[in-house]
Amino acid sequence: MVADDIPGFWAVVPAGGAGTRLWPLSRSRSPKFLHDLTGSGRTLLEQTADRLVPITGDRILVVTGAAHRDAVREQLADLPDDAVLAEPSARDSMAAIGLAAAVLELRGAEVMGSFAADHVIADVDRFAEAVGAAVAAARDDWLVTIGIEPTFASSAFGYIHQGEPLDGHPGVRRVVEFVEKPSVPVAETYLATGRYRWNAGMFVVRPTVLLDLLAEQDPAFAETLRTIAAEPDRLPELWDTLPRIAIDHAIAEPAAAAGRVATVPGGFGWDDVGDFDSLATLLGAEEDCSVLGDDSLTHLIGATGIVVPRSGRTVAVIGLDDVVVVDTPDALLVTTRARAQEVKDVVAALKAQGRTDLT
Amino acid sequence: MVADDIPGFWAVVPAGGAGTRLWPLSRSRSPKFLHDLTGSGRTLLEQTADRLVPITGDRILVVTGAAHRDAVREQLADLPDDAVLAEPSARDSMAAIGLAAAVLELRGAEVMGSFAADHVIADVDRFAEAVGAAVAAARDDWLVTIGIEPTFASSAFGYIHQGEPLDGHPGVRRVVEFVEKPSVPVAETYLATGRYRWNAGMFVVRPTVLLDLLAEQDPAFAETLRTIAAEPDRLPELWDTLPRIAIDHAIAEPAAAAGRVATVPGGFGWDDVGDFDSLATLLGAEEDCSVLGDDSLTHLIGATGIVVPRSGRTVAVIGLDDVVVVDTPDALLVTTRARAQEVKDVVAALKAQGRTDLT
Repeated sequence: MVADDIPGFWAVVPAGGAGTRLWPLSRSRSPKFLHDLTGSGRTLLEQTADRLVPITGDRILVVTGAAHRDAVREQLADLPDDAVLAEPSARDSMAAIGLAAAVLELRGAEVMGSFAADHVIADVDRFAEAVGAAVAAARDDWLVTIGIEPTFASSAFGYIHQGEPLDGHPGVRRVVEFVEKPSVPVAETYLATGRYRWNAGMFVVRPTVLLDLLAEQDPAFAETLRTIAAEPDRLPELWDTLPRIAIDHAIAEPAAAAGRVATVPGGFGWDDVGDFDSLATLLGAEEDCSVLGDDSLTHLIGATGIVVPRSGRTVAVIGLDDVVVVDTPDALLVTTRARAQEVKDVVAALKAQGRTDLT
Repeated sequence: MVADDIPGFWAVVPAGGAGTRLWPLSRSRSPKFLHDLTGSGRTLLEQTADRLVPITGDRILVVTGAAHRDAVREQLADLPDDAVLAEPSARDSMAAIGLAAAVLELRGAEVMGSFAADHVIADVDRFAEAVGAAVAAARDDWLVTIGIEPTFASSAFGYIHQGEPLDGHPGVRRVVEFVEKPSVPVAETYLATGRYRWNAGMFVVRPTVLLDLLAEQDPAFAETLRTIAAEPDRLPELWDTLPRIAIDHAIAEPAAAAGRVATVPGGFGWDDVGDFDSLATLLGAEEDCSVLGDDSLTHLIGATGIVVPRSGRTVAVIGLDDVVVVDTPDALLVTTRARAQEVKDVVAALKAQGRTDLT
């Protein structure tokens, strides 16, 4: 099945985040979303566009750092020239998504939805169905979030506490509150209730509703965004005056407290590919060793985990379980799936040494 | 202390063996003995010459494969031009050492000693003392072997079973027999007796005695060696007619059975650097992670074992104990010290694929 176009609906794709836990694949200059991390032949950004185009057509707006503008344009060459908004600097998600909302308000978009450029979704049809349900609720002026069905008690994600069903929108529920990343034991209590979902930052909302919700909290912020959208030449001047705040804190939490947020269940198989451990899970490395790249380069004896041969060199791994080996032309990482989080410490150490060439 | 020259004594240095268990550092084209494996700044071959020169001066004869002749000459540039004998092909140790004996017999050497090019010796003065004692016994026509004091019940070495003291040579004993590589439990029984030593192939003997012992077993073999020494132009023609046999089987075992072998204790700290596990031990990697190379290239977090950064790339290792990471420009090895023996299986697989560029 190919999903149908959703009239008047625009997708906003925030393409940010260095993905330091995926070093040395992901770098500041070439972050995670620009890479093919699933061996599909498409980068995460391309895959994101691939699953949006059936429901949005050309109505996609990518918000990315100025440094990545050209790379994004190159990967999404089929989109119109004005499909990429370049941020002069990173100012967190409220500024990025808020600017997109202001631009789309001017372009006459009816509803927008934000979908990160570096997530992986297994079932594209079910994703499109969930978005369709979210758009329908958003047309009634709700701030709608797609709540991912949790598959384990993760401490890496914030949770959405869902409440009563929303009249007139089958399957959609009111949001009681957003909760910050919990400890694993707390997450386990969430899962036991069956009423919590992962917050993947997928907000579906009318641009005007989003900006008005922002204006209720910070009128100047919303006004500046609308000014930039109307007078793009003022972007460089005004951008650095915007607060650095996540959209969750700026809008979603107060709106939930005011009873203005709804949630649609997302059971389409979602992964944010946070580190090499989750990448290994995604690639099915439980029994075997996953090779992300040319497996003719690898010689594996009694090894499980993930091997990423990306330098053209031969890579031999012998007798290691749950290992992570990432081979790039200028840097090599060897660790275990259990320690994969600590990759960011290496990146921090390299940055402290001024090794911008490697980070 | 610098050891004294031993008059009339020549060293023979067999420089062979690919060292496949040290891949990808050691290659067919560039075997183990040509590498600095201890971080001393000197290759194993250079270190071998360094400890021999004080007792032999220029009287060193290296026997190596024709393919390595130039590399050996380059590393030992201070030795005379005729210090390197090139074998047209590898025909095991009896042919190599026997040819050296025949050449040295003609050059008037009184005693010769064979010392492999790829072993590491910690205490050079005690080594020289042991050689001195061995030469003294060899002058009395004994085939003398230096028996290494075993430090653990290794199944990787043959053993020398030593018998009664040799009259007139304090510290020297008769050899009862040579025994093949035992199992670890058998090796443990050997160590418990205190009468077994490792056979490191260090034979000290008068060249004529060696050739005459060979002639007793295989007269044609000894005669051909003497012919080649007298008529070097016939080397290519005659070399391939020589039996492929180890000196242990050809001479040492029958001579021991005939009561003509003596042994000198070698307590000078010896290692044949057989694989990355023994290299790690040699470099003191028990508590820490040893870096063989430029340690500014490495970022180690919670790692023990050995890391060999030899490609100029940054190498990060996180959360692995007893790991082996060998990074070269065209091949990468990741394994554990416990599995280090299996490196040869990777080399065999690469050879089976015709990857002579990598092996």
